[in-house]
Amino acid sequence: MSFTTEERGRPHTAEYRVFFKDSAGKYISPFHDIPFYADEDENIFHAVVEVPRWTNAKIEIATKEPLNPLKQDTKKGSLRYVANVFPHKGYIWNYGAIPQTWEDPNHQDSDTGCCGDNDPIDICDIGNKVCSRGEVIKVKVLGTLALIDEGETDWKVIVINTDDPDANSYTNIDDVRRNKPGYLEATVDWFRRYKVPDGKPENQFAFNGVFKDRDFAIKTVKDTHEFWKALMSKTTDAGELNCTNTSIADSPFCCSAAHAEAVVQSKSAFGPEDPVPSSVDKWFYYETKS
Amino acid sequence: MSFTTEERGRPHTAEYRVFFKDSAGKYISPFHDIPFYADEDENIFHAVVEVPRWTNAKIEIATKEPLNPLKQDTKKGSLRYVANVFPHKGYIWNYGAIPQTWEDPNHQDSDTGCCGDNDPIDICDIGNKVCSRGEVIKVKVLGTLALIDEGETDWKVIVINTDDPDANSYTNIDDVRRNKPGYLEATVDWFRRYKVPDGKPENQFAFNGVFKDRDFAIKTVKDTHEFWKALMSKTTDAGELNCTNTSIADSPFCCSAAHAEAVVQSKSAFGPEDPVPSSVDKWFYYETKS
Repeated sequence: MSFTTEERGRPHTAEYRVFFKDSAGKYISPFHDIPFYADEDENIFHAVVEVPRWTNAKIEIATKEPLNPLKQDTKKGSLRYVANVFPHKGYIWNYGAIPQTWEDPNHQDSDTGCCGDNDPIDICDIGNKVCSRGEVIKVKVLGTLALIDEGETDWKVIVINTDDPDANSYTNIDDVRRNKPGYLEATVDWFRRYKVPDGKPENQFAFNGVFKDRDFAIKTVKDTHEFWKALMSKTTDAGELNCTNTSIADSPFCCSAAHAEAVVQSKSAFGPEDPVPSSVDKWFYYETKS
Repeated sequence: MSFTTEERGRPHTAEYRVFFKDSAGKYISPFHDIPFYADEDENIFHAVVEVPRWTNAKIEIATKEPLNPLKQDTKKGSLRYVANVFPHKGYIWNYGAIPQTWEDPNHQDSDTGCCGDNDPIDICDIGNKVCSRGEVIKVKVLGTLALIDEGETDWKVIVINTDDPDANSYTNIDDVRRNKPGYLEATVDWFRRYKVPDGKPENQFAFNGVFKDRDFAIKTVKDTHEFWKALMSKTTDAGELNCTNTSIADSPFCCSAAHAEAVVQSKSAFGPEDPVPSSVDKWFYYETKS
C-alpha cells in the first residue's frame, strides 16, 4: 500500500496544508483512511510522519478539518515552532501518529489515572533515516512513555521504521537502550523540557518516566484503535473532531470521492514558502541564570 | 567593510567553490585579503564562516588554491561530511577561521609542545544566529581550547558574533560557562569524538581539555597573525600554500584584479546542487556495543 501527498497553500504560513492520496490517487484522510495495520500478524503498524527529525515546525494532523490534512499548529495567531533545548536541535526523532487510533478524552486510563488527549496516538521513530513530512512508514513498536500533559495522558510510542537497515536488531525497549545509548534518557529529557522556553512548566510522566515495554505498548496502541472504532461508528461522540473519510464503508461519515476532491480544491493553491523566522534557530539553555 | 560571495560549480560536488568579493565587487582571498581586525582597539576580529551550525559538510578555505575559495574537503575521492555524534547534529557552532592568520607548521608552541597545522586559526561562534556559508562576521574572542590533532596544535578559538543581541553579556570564557551551561563541555566532547565514526581515534587536548581564557586566546590569535605576516613577506616558506592576494601591496604574491577575475572565470559555472547522500543523516551512538 503506498500513499502520496499533495501540498496546498504556501509552506510556513497558516494556510499550508498537506493532503493525502492513496495509491489510486484518491484523496483520503490520514487519520481515518490509512489502515492501522501494515501487517497485523507481525504487529507492524502504519505511521504518518508529521515532524521530520531535527526540524522545529509543529506540523500535525488537523483532526478538526475535513480529510484531516497536515497543518502547522498556531498559538495566539503565530505559527508554532518547537524550541531547540540544548543539546538538542528540533525534534530528536521522526515524530508522527498512528492512523485509526484515538486517545479518547472520555476514557480514564487505569494506569495513569488520566483521560486521553483527543488525538491519534503519537510515535517517535528512532530509525536512522530522516523522513519527509507526510511520509507514511511501517513501524515496529518497541515501548512507550506516558507523558502527562496538563492532566491528560499523552502516550509517546517508541517505534522503529521497518525499512531501517538495523530494524532486525530491535524487538523491545531494552534494544534501544543497548544500541542507542542515551537516546531514551534524551527522549524523557526532551519531553520534560521542550515547552519550558515557551513559558510552560516541565511536563510530568506516569511511571516515573520509566518506559513500558513492547507488549504494554502494543496493547496501548490497540486500545486506542478500539476507541477510534467507537468514534467512527458514532458509539462515542466525536465532539469537534472531523470524521469525514473516503473508505470506511460502514461509517456514517464516509463521503464520496467527488466530495473529497471538492474539499481539497477549496484550499489555496500551493505556492512558494515563506521564510522561517530566524528566531526559530535560537538555542535555549536550561539552567541559564541570567 | 562588507563582503559578498560568488558560488561556482554545483553545490555538494568536488567542483563547488565559494569565492569572495569586497564591497567594491573586486575578487579577494578570504585567507589573505579580509582584514584581521574589525576593530583593533576593541580586539574585535573578522571571521569567515565555513560551516554553519547544525550542518555537516566539511567546507573550508582552500589554502592551496589561488584566491582561496571555500570548497568541501574530500577524503579518498569522497566529499567529506562530519558525522552526527549523538546527541549532536552536525557542527554545534558556526565554525570558521580568522583571516590573515596562520598556524605555522614550523613553529613549536611553547605551551602545547606541538607545531601548527598549516591552516588559518579556527573559530567556534557561539552566537544564536545560524550564519550562512561564507558569511563574514565580527567576533569577540572569549577563550580557546587546544586540540592536538595527529601531533599538531589546532587551536579552537571560542568567539561570539558581535551582532548577537546578548554579545554584551560575554567578555570571557566563564560567561559562556554561566550563560550557556553545558556548551563548553559539549564542545570538548564534540572535538574529542567527531572523527571516531570515521574510524579515527579520539582527539587529545593540551591543558587536559581546560579552556584558556580571553587574554590567552587573544595572544594566541595575534601570534598567528604574525606568522601570517612572515608568510606573506616570504620570510617563511609558504610550501604548498597559495598566497595570491589582491590587496597586500607590499606582498610579492599580490596580483591584479584582472588576474583574480581570470582565476574565478576559469572555474565551472554555478549550477543546481547535487542531493546530499542520506547516509549523512545517520546518528552515531558512541557506546554502541553491537
